[in-house]
Amino acid sequence: MLNGIEIVRPEEIEKRSMEIITQELGGRTWPEPEFSIVKRCIHTSADFDYADQLCFSKDAARLGVEALRRGAVIVTDTKMAWSGINKKKLMEYGGEAYCYMTDEDVAKEAKQRECTRAAVCMERGAALDREVIFAVGNAPTALIRLYELIQEKKVSPALIIGAPVGFVNVVEAKELIMNAGVPYIVPRGRKGGSNIAATICNAMLYVKE
Amino acid sequence: MLNGIEIVRPEEIEKRSMEIITQELGGRTWPEPEFSIVKRCIHTSADFDYADQLCFSKDAARLGVEALRRGAVIVTDTKMAWSGINKKKLMEYGGEAYCYMTDEDVAKEAKQRECTRAAVCMERGAALDREVIFAVGNAPTALIRLYELIQEKKVSPALIIGAPVGFVNVVEAKELIMNAGVPYIVPRGRKGGSNIAATICNAMLYVKE
Repeated sequence: MLNGIEIVRPEEIEKRSMEIITQELGGRTWPEPEFSIVKRCIHTSADFDYADQLCFSKDAARLGVEALRRGAVIVTDTKMAWSGINKKKLMEYGGEAYCYMTDEDVAKEAKQRECTRAAVCMERGAALDREVIFAVGNAPTALIRLYELIQEKKVSPALIIGAPVGFVNVVEAKELIMNAGVPYIVPRGRKGGSNIAATICNAMLYVKE
Repeated sequence: MLNGIEIVRPEEIEKRSMEIITQELGGRTWPEPEFSIVKRCIHTSADFDYADQLCFSKDAARLGVEALRRGAVIVTDTKMAWSGINKKKLMEYGGEAYCYMTDEDVAKEAKQRECTRAAVCMERGAALDREVIFAVGNAPTALIRLYELIQEKKVSPALIIGAPVGFVNVVEAKELIMNAGVPYIVPRGRKGGSNIAATICNAMLYVKE
């Protein structure tokens, strides 16, 4: 006990945090596994706005969970999101997480084509011969490129987690991907981030079988 | 142009974002380099609460910038924060970033001593024969252990970025570290995260010489 700080065992902290979040949501609930995702986004950010902003296409969370259990891979647009994903848990299902952002050839290709590295990364993900969940935590251009690839029938994502954060083109890119005809989980508006993209992946990985 | 989304060059996006943030802050300003840190936290989270919550001890941001320019290292409590730090820029000043969280011996020692891995990681950082900035984005126990180490005169950090996020012991651990007698940058309250810890480091690295 130091200056009134009670020692709480690490495994207790998460349990108690979730209880506080549930209590402060004041009776609002979602069907599972959506509710777990809402709570985990709040747990990661301490920001209750996610309760209002998170949008799920029909059955998106369940479809995501099922894809992960079939061994779907996750493609991210940031190393931070990649770092935050529980890759040990993902591997138990046969999945892997990829981020191509720091690959030298991606930077080179983006420069040549005058597009963003994130757009090129989404193309790499689309070219994988695997079921793919795209987890976007930073670049609206990643969502825009995914939208185009879907229209061109070059990719059919198991799920798109569309959580870029920011002030320029972010709101618009999220609205675009919500009209792409594929399963999505999107925190509408400006908010999001690599931490949110990663925590949504983890929430789906932690759903009890 | 796709569904009303204007193509903005990547280097323009950040500039425009910062203009929007400045505008929406409605005339509120801080002395530099604090202002850059406030803006970058909002840029990373799209959450204007950081304007109200960020606390700086006297000259903390300037002291952090100076330490980085002398080649200070950064020790984080999460791989996500480590991932988010611009290590290329850090290396230009002779610095490095360390995160010991996934080291096997750290897990082993934490288990034996019945403490958290984050607490052990802070001890590893304190034992470095370098000037150290601690960037904490997750574990209140990291801040509590740092407080103890400071009291025991086992470490004298150049700066503590105290930005854990959450609902249990987070608020209290932040208040504790703000009374440790060392330079700090702390988003008071529940909010924070690895993204915030990393972005505060980057804001200091990007200060123009």
